[in-house]
Formats: sequence, C-alpha cells, structure tokens
Amino acid sequence: MKKNLADRLLRAVDEKRNPSVVGLDPRINMIPEHVRVAASEKTEDPFQAVGFAFQEFNRAIIDDIKDIVPAVKPQVAFYEQYGSHGIKAYEETVRYAREKGLLVIGDVKRNDIGSTAEAYARAHLGEVDLVDGSSAYSFDTDMITVNPYLGSDGIRPFLEACKTYGKGIFILDKTSNPSSGELQDRTVEGNGKVYEIAARLIDRWGEELVGEKGYSSVGAVVGATYPREAQVLREIMKKAVFLIPGYGAQGGTADDILPCFNQDGYGGVVNSSRGIIFAHGRPPYSEEYGPLEYSKASRQAALHMKDDILASLERGNKLPEGW
Amino acid sequence: MKKNLADRLLRAVDEKRNPSVVGLDPRINMIPEHVRVAASEKTEDPFQAVGFAFQEFNRAIIDDIKDIVPAVKPQVAFYEQYGSHGIKAYEETVRYAREKGLLVIGDVKRNDIGSTAEAYARAHLGEVDLVDGSSAYSFDTDMITVNPYLGSDGIRPFLEACKTYGKGIFILDKTSNPSSGELQDRTVEGNGKVYEIAARLIDRWGEELVGEKGYSSVGAVVGATYPREAQVLREIMKKAVFLIPGYGAQGGTADDILPCFNQDGYGGVVNSSRGIIFAHGRPPYSEEYGPLEYSKASRQAALHMKDDILASLERGNKLPEGW
Repeated sequence: MKKNLADRLLRAVDEKRNPSVVGLDPRINMIPEHVRVAASEKTEDPFQAVGFAFQEFNRAIIDDIKDIVPAVKPQVAFYEQYGSHGIKAYEETVRYAREKGLLVIGDVKRNDIGSTAEAYARAHLGEVDLVDGSSAYSFDTDMITVNPYLGSDGIRPFLEACKTYGKGIFILDKTSNPSSGELQDRTVEGNGKVYEIAARLIDRWGEELVGEKGYSSVGAVVGATYPREAQVLREIMKKAVFLIPGYGAQGGTADDILPCFNQDGYGGVVNSSRGIIFAHGRPPYSEEYGPLEYSKASRQAALHMKDDILASLERGNKLPEGW
Repeated sequence: MKKNLADRLLRAVDEKRNPSVVGLDPRINMIPEHVRVAASEKTEDPFQAVGFAFQEFNRAIIDDIKDIVPAVKPQVAFYEQYGSHGIKAYEETVRYAREKGLLVIGDVKRNDIGSTAEAYARAHLGEVDLVDGSSAYSFDTDMITVNPYLGSDGIRPFLEACKTYGKGIFILDKTSNPSSGELQDRTVEGNGKVYEIAARLIDRWGEELVGEKGYSSVGAVVGATYPREAQVLREIMKKAVFLIPGYGAQGGTADDILPCFNQDGYGGVVNSSRGIIFAHGRPPYSEEYGPLEYSKASRQAALHMKDDILASLERGNKLPEGW
C-alpha cells in the first residue's frame, strides 16, 4: 500500500512552512540569452535546442527554490509545443525536481473516458505496458490536473491510479479566468451552480482517498480570482486540497486566497508561474539581479510570495499550528 | 489566406464518398507479435521499442485505408503513455498520414486559458517560436478536439489558430459515455441543458470560420450513443461538422448516427478505432486474415463500416447528391 498523496503533500507543506508552489512554464523568448545560446550550441535541431534551454532554465530555478517550496507545477503545454523534444524536457524536469525532494504537479488538464482515460492515468501517474509484457513508470508525476466535463467515466480511471500508485489529482472546478462562468456559473434547476454540482461530485470521488491528516488525494482547482465562490466551495469540499491559480499575474491577492483555506490553515496550495520564474525581468528583482542570476531572482520572488501568503493567513487567523 | 478547413474536410469526404474516419489508438498488447518483435530488435530502450511498434503498426494500416477514408484520428493518450518516444511515434504517424493525402484529427481534448491555450493551439495547429526568433510547425495536425469547460477564454486562442493556419477544432459537447450527463445534461434555469448552452456557444464561435460549402471549421463532438440529443444539437449547430464517436465498440449503430447529419447528407464524420485497427483479432476478419495481414483486415473492416453508414444515409434519404 502506497502512502496517501494528500498526507505526503501536507507533510511537505509543513516542512517548508509554505503552501505556495512554483509553476515551471518556460517560454523560449523570455529565457535569458546565455541559456539560449548554450542550448543552441549543443545541437543542430532547433526543437531540441529549445528542449535543452528549458531543461537548463528549470534546473537552475529548481536548485534555488528547492528548500523554500513543497512542489513545482510544470504546465505541459509549453513543453508539448516542441513535440518529442519538448516532452523530453518535461520528463527531465519532472525527474530532476523529484530527485531534489520536490513534489511535482503535472498541469495537464487531461480528460477522456474508459481505456483512454486509463492510458492518461498510467502515463502521468502510474506504470505503462511494455513490449515484453512488463511495465514501467513513465512521467511519474505526483499529481496532475484533470477536467470533469465527461463525468465519472472520465474520473474513475484516475482515482484507481491514485489508489494503486499513491498519487493525486486536482479536478477543475471554478477556474480563474474571466469567462469561466459561461458554463461553470450556470444555475441548474434545484441544484445550484454547475461548479457546485462539480464540487459535490469531487467531494464524493475523493471519499475513498482521505489520508491520516483528513485531506483527500482528490483536490480541486479553484481560482484565486473568485474568493466568494471559493467560500461556498470550501463548505462543499471540506476534505479537498484546493490548487489555486490566479495569484499575482492574474490579479488574485494573498487575501483573495484566504477563503480557500480551512480554519486549520491547510487545504490550499497557491501557484505562481510567471511572477516567480521570470522575476529577473521586472522590478524590484531586475534591479538586484541580472539575467545571469535569473534563478536568484526567482528565489527572492518565491520568498516574497511565501511571506505574502503567510502574512495573509496570519491576518485571517489561519496560520497552521506550530508554524 | 489559407483554405478553410471545413471546405477541405468536406472535399475529402466527397472524394472518398465516405464520412467515416479511422481512430489510430494503438495498444502494445494488441499489436501483432511480428511487429512487436521487429520493433524490439531495433532498440535497447523499452519505451522506444513501443514507439517503433506503434509507427510500423500505423504505417501499414494507413497504406491500406488511405484510398477509402478521408481522415484518421490518432488518440494522443496512447502515445503519451510512452513519453517522448511515444510522442515521436505520434509525430511520425501524423506526418506519414498527411504525406499519404489523409487529413489528421488529433484527438487531444486540450483545454486551458490565455497564453497556455495559445501554446496548445500553436503546438497542434500552428507554428512555435524557436531559439533564434524564427518559427516552425510542430505537430501540424489539421484538426484537434478541445474541451469547453473553461468558456471563451479557453477557445479563442484555438479560433485564432484556425484562422491563421487554415485549421479546425471539434469542441466536446455531448460525449458518448454513460456518465456524460452528470454535468452535460443538467437543466439550466431558462436555458435548457448544459450541452445546449455549449452548442449555442459553439455555433457562435464558429460563425467567423464558415467556408464556401456552408460549414464551419469549428465542429462539435456528439456521441453516436445519444441520437435524440443529436437531433436537438443539429438544430442548434446547423453549420457545425459533428465528430461522432461511439459507433461500433461503444454500441452506437449506423442508424443512431443519422440525426447527426443534415438533410444535404453532410455535417458528420463518424469514428471507429478498435473496430477497424484490431479487426484481425475478431470474426469475421480473423477467419480470413492472420496477424501478418492485420492491415488487410483493417481495410475490410473500414469498407464494411463505409457500406454500413452509406446504407443508413440512403435509408434516411440523406445520401449526398451525386454519391
């Protein structure tokens, strides 16, 4: 029996005394020139060059934030752009981060049904079949994000993988973007909003995966940009960990994320991507660090984010006991 | 200005006189032994061996169905299981199928917002940025499937890519699986079902991409297993091409798919995966073809599917003019 993921995640949050995670979303035209040049010199293939640049860019950041944050969240879309070379960089980033003791949330938003959903679950959380009948881990991320639009058929294969391999999922519920309400906010006759129905499903799906600390390995994505909705959702999904995008670049503040946390101070992990990994490009960090020290700028930005969130938890009387 | 995708798709359907497509969803333990053995002998890497087996398996099938069907639909999950080596096989399959004159529908069900959705759109439909500031096509599929749960923010970047690159998308609406109703069938106050709201959004999103033949490059996924719902959706989305899963293995019959087609006989493409690519493993095909001739069995199954669907269109008085 593998250890419950929610227990592992909360333990990591406790160890770092930090519920924030760093999104590793590399964009080639925002990566410092010296990293791009070095990558180009290693290969003739222009797609592989991008892959090398992503790996090196991430490696330095991971080295400089690994003692601060419990987890990183690579967004696979940025890697997928470069086909097999990009996915190779994703694989290496996941492997390196885990080797350095970080949990890895693969932000993949996968969704499908039946044997196809099972294929995604195996790809990202479990073991896949090989030619000789044996099996092996593929990406081996700790958690991934998934989309609920297809209902239980699209979720059950991921739940099975969570049980078998001690992994976790975050299911999209109320997302951080302006148009999220077009489907999610619709009021269903006698049942509240669509996102409330999704929340009740998520709560039910998570029941069998509750760990010793009272949280489930089945979490929910709830945007920092919708604090009022978050309050409602916290009531419905008491045992879910919320993955909270939208802090920083998208306009969500540390106070906006407070309703996502339970009274015990747990239940939320807040993500920032651009605000951390491209900190070297903007004040105040650009004043202290040049492009050669981009990962030091990321470290400073990650420390500021931690302080910002802890101060807010304290103001809201939600700082975990013993922090 | 690139040619409109819906026009290209309908022309291909007309040329083959066939609105059915073949799903290329390889599973290593269902691939004939001689293909597996040959792949294993080409590499020491067990993941690469699977990738080689997938490429060869698909290549033979593409060769034997390329004169029958207008398009193939690889399901990326099965490739993604094997990381960068699996994605390499996906890339090669897409490239080979297009080289042989087939349109390729990447069944990826991607979804995200803002710059992340743009990254997915560029990855699958357009050009991506390289280290030296130039750009190049990546997967270069003709169409992909996308998920609507995030609303317009999650769709707009794909629409832009469709315009710029002459590509298309199929947006999930009413999916073929038993639990699709958990969210999709909810009745929204004063607005019908969630899938009807999604349909009205899809119809609107598609307005700017209508081609000369009156169909839009923005299509919808509507399961063959829900003919009554399909009838309603056909009314709402008059200009959308429906991508219809669920025929065959999932229980949908040729008559079930009739409501997905317009009176002119167009507006639907029907997918079958397992029923075609693994035809060699089941009667009547297994009686005539051994595992060495698996692609011949696929050809027979594809011809049967075509006959089955055309007969149904004829019964329903929906056979396109001149077929």
